[in-house]
Amino acid sequence: MKGSNLSARVKRVFRSLETDDIRADLILLKNGIEPHLDLSFFYLTGVESGLFEGSSLIAYPDGKTILYTSILEEESARKSGVRSVKTFRDEKEEVKLLKKEIGPTATIGINARELTYSDFLSLKKILRGRFINVSSAISKARMIKDQHEIAHLRRSAEIANRTFSELPSILNDSITESEAAAVLNSTMLRYGASSPAFETIVAFGPNSSEPHYSPKKRRLKKGDYALFDFGAKYMKYCSDISRTLVYGTAPKELRDIYQIVLQANVLGIEALKSGEMAKDVHNKVAKFIDSTRYRGRFIHATGHTIGLAVHDGGSLSSRSETKLENGMVFTVEPGIYVPGLGGVRIEDDVVVRGQKPEVLTNAPKELIEA
Amino acid sequence: MKGSNLSARVKRVFRSLETDDIRADLILLKNGIEPHLDLSFFYLTGVESGLFEGSSLIAYPDGKTILYTSILEEESARKSGVRSVKTFRDEKEEVKLLKKEIGPTATIGINARELTYSDFLSLKKILRGRFINVSSAISKARMIKDQHEIAHLRRSAEIANRTFSELPSILNDSITESEAAAVLNSTMLRYGASSPAFETIVAFGPNSSEPHYSPKKRRLKKGDYALFDFGAKYMKYCSDISRTLVYGTAPKELRDIYQIVLQANVLGIEALKSGEMAKDVHNKVAKFIDSTRYRGRFIHATGHTIGLAVHDGGSLSSRSETKLENGMVFTVEPGIYVPGLGGVRIEDDVVVRGQKPEVLTNAPKELIEA
Repeated sequence: MKGSNLSARVKRVFRSLETDDIRADLILLKNGIEPHLDLSFFYLTGVESGLFEGSSLIAYPDGKTILYTSILEEESARKSGVRSVKTFRDEKEEVKLLKKEIGPTATIGINARELTYSDFLSLKKILRGRFINVSSAISKARMIKDQHEIAHLRRSAEIANRTFSELPSILNDSITESEAAAVLNSTMLRYGASSPAFETIVAFGPNSSEPHYSPKKRRLKKGDYALFDFGAKYMKYCSDISRTLVYGTAPKELRDIYQIVLQANVLGIEALKSGEMAKDVHNKVAKFIDSTRYRGRFIHATGHTIGLAVHDGGSLSSRSETKLENGMVFTVEPGIYVPGLGGVRIEDDVVVRGQKPEVLTNAPKELIEA
Repeated sequence: MKGSNLSARVKRVFRSLETDDIRADLILLKNGIEPHLDLSFFYLTGVESGLFEGSSLIAYPDGKTILYTSILEEESARKSGVRSVKTFRDEKEEVKLLKKEIGPTATIGINARELTYSDFLSLKKILRGRFINVSSAISKARMIKDQHEIAHLRRSAEIANRTFSELPSILNDSITESEAAAVLNSTMLRYGASSPAFETIVAFGPNSSEPHYSPKKRRLKKGDYALFDFGAKYMKYCSDISRTLVYGTAPKELRDIYQIVLQANVLGIEALKSGEMAKDVHNKVAKFIDSTRYRGRFIHATGHTIGLAVHDGGSLSSRSETKLENGMVFTVEPGIYVPGLGGVRIEDDVVVRGQKPEVLTNAPKELIEA
């Protein structure tokens, strides 16, 4: 990754800070121990492999960055595009380096949303400057994806698309939800994902009426709804797709529900225009579903931003205050859930591009009777 | 999972607090947004699926717990073994519930190591009690695995064992490191892993001399060292295994290095006895390697605890102050790294059991020429 791309990201964060009327002399990101990684550390360093546990990054308003890393990950660090890499052998040496760089009167921006409280306490002990939380500015900057990020998101979505295309051949009378999830996961990794982006959901029959269901021992039966919600992680970027199939011939009610959800999905995607309010997109979708006989059966937000995290900070919900801008990437995932019967969800990953959104997940959406 | 097992875990944490002479009326764990999950939340609730983003847990010294969860994950919560589950529709409702349970004068234990600073700030805003950090006590309690945890770790290790057994048939003249990593990952998931436990390391030839190498485009050649370091996540528990093979016939020097590392691995495992100091295990292994012509080529700790995290809190290193106890589970992973030539690492997952450690990773350790 090029240094100029990274410095553009850093500058975007500081511009976003300015908009919030916050001034920081520098931003200090301290990466924790897995799973407590600061994804913004990866955003501002561009490192694409390795965990960099305990590493730190200092970023300046002019776009310059310094990466502090253990000697064990020096090589990956040097490939990251950060020009200044400093290595330490242990925490003591790291502290010394940070103290040397950060003066006693500096205003130090920290990312409270991705920093553990205990790491904050350690920083406070070693540095004498004033700390201010810049999480909100970082989050806003990360909402607008650059070309490099969109390329990764596209690849990640393609892995999900290709995986989906194998689904019909996987389904049979004896497969359980857990087994189907294992095949999906394994297929994503065969196509180049580093891991599933989140715990894959496979729900057969009435289980599909639970949006956050975890796959269990239920076997697939003729006429079952089969809901799949999965995504790949590729170069640390996440995709997130849902499709609902029918095993055998679809019962009439399922057909009706399916068509409504599909219409809602298309409506949501079309509404993703630069300048619109995120909440209006949600309200439009929710209003449409509530105008059918399935009023009250759409029980979650219409979508969320994706990126380095599956839930990347923004949402399409009634409470969101986000205005859509080019380069934002949202899931659009309306669903209808009827307890005892089943549920349908159709979810795509969509980039805001002026008045014509770009859909990354091009797996077919017509009702498949597998 | 049984409620009695959970309450034993809670009591172990409070006993560990007592040893540290810290008194808390209750412990409050606030689970963050992925990846900022509090693994101790999963330890003390026993939930085995779902993310429970934004959920909270209150634990009392008598072993009682209350789980606060969004209605979307109520079902999983009710299966967790926590007897008291309270649901909320949004954060505002959650705050109300927490305030109702926690009085204004309570001493509230928090887990600073797994709590984001911004979540801490929110808790401080809504609760009037006194906060104290109980991370160290939680970490110590989690070091001793119960039977339920060891069963999960065993399954996780078995997935790694079975995956390893397929390795020789995967290797061929045209495969790249990245391709081999994808096959390994995919195989683990086919055998029931929910995801790789960490980014799989595959290093061919001289690349194997970098302990934290990330797989790239290098193709396998005859006579190459091929180092694999991978692990499965099963029911949220991690395995972590390393093996080094040779593709074709092993050069003489590699044979020598291999035998030394294997001896060091066996030495380390045998030293894992209840009552020993963790640092003594490391020192014994390091001293042995330093007594050979590869002095100075073992450049990391001998091992680390595994559990809900791959790096689960404890280590076999010269600085560790941990005394080994029954039920602790460590990796033992000596290595020799010769820049320009290559490296060998042999890593097992081992349970401390009195004087006779139990090895969970039974994949073969003699030198394989594949």
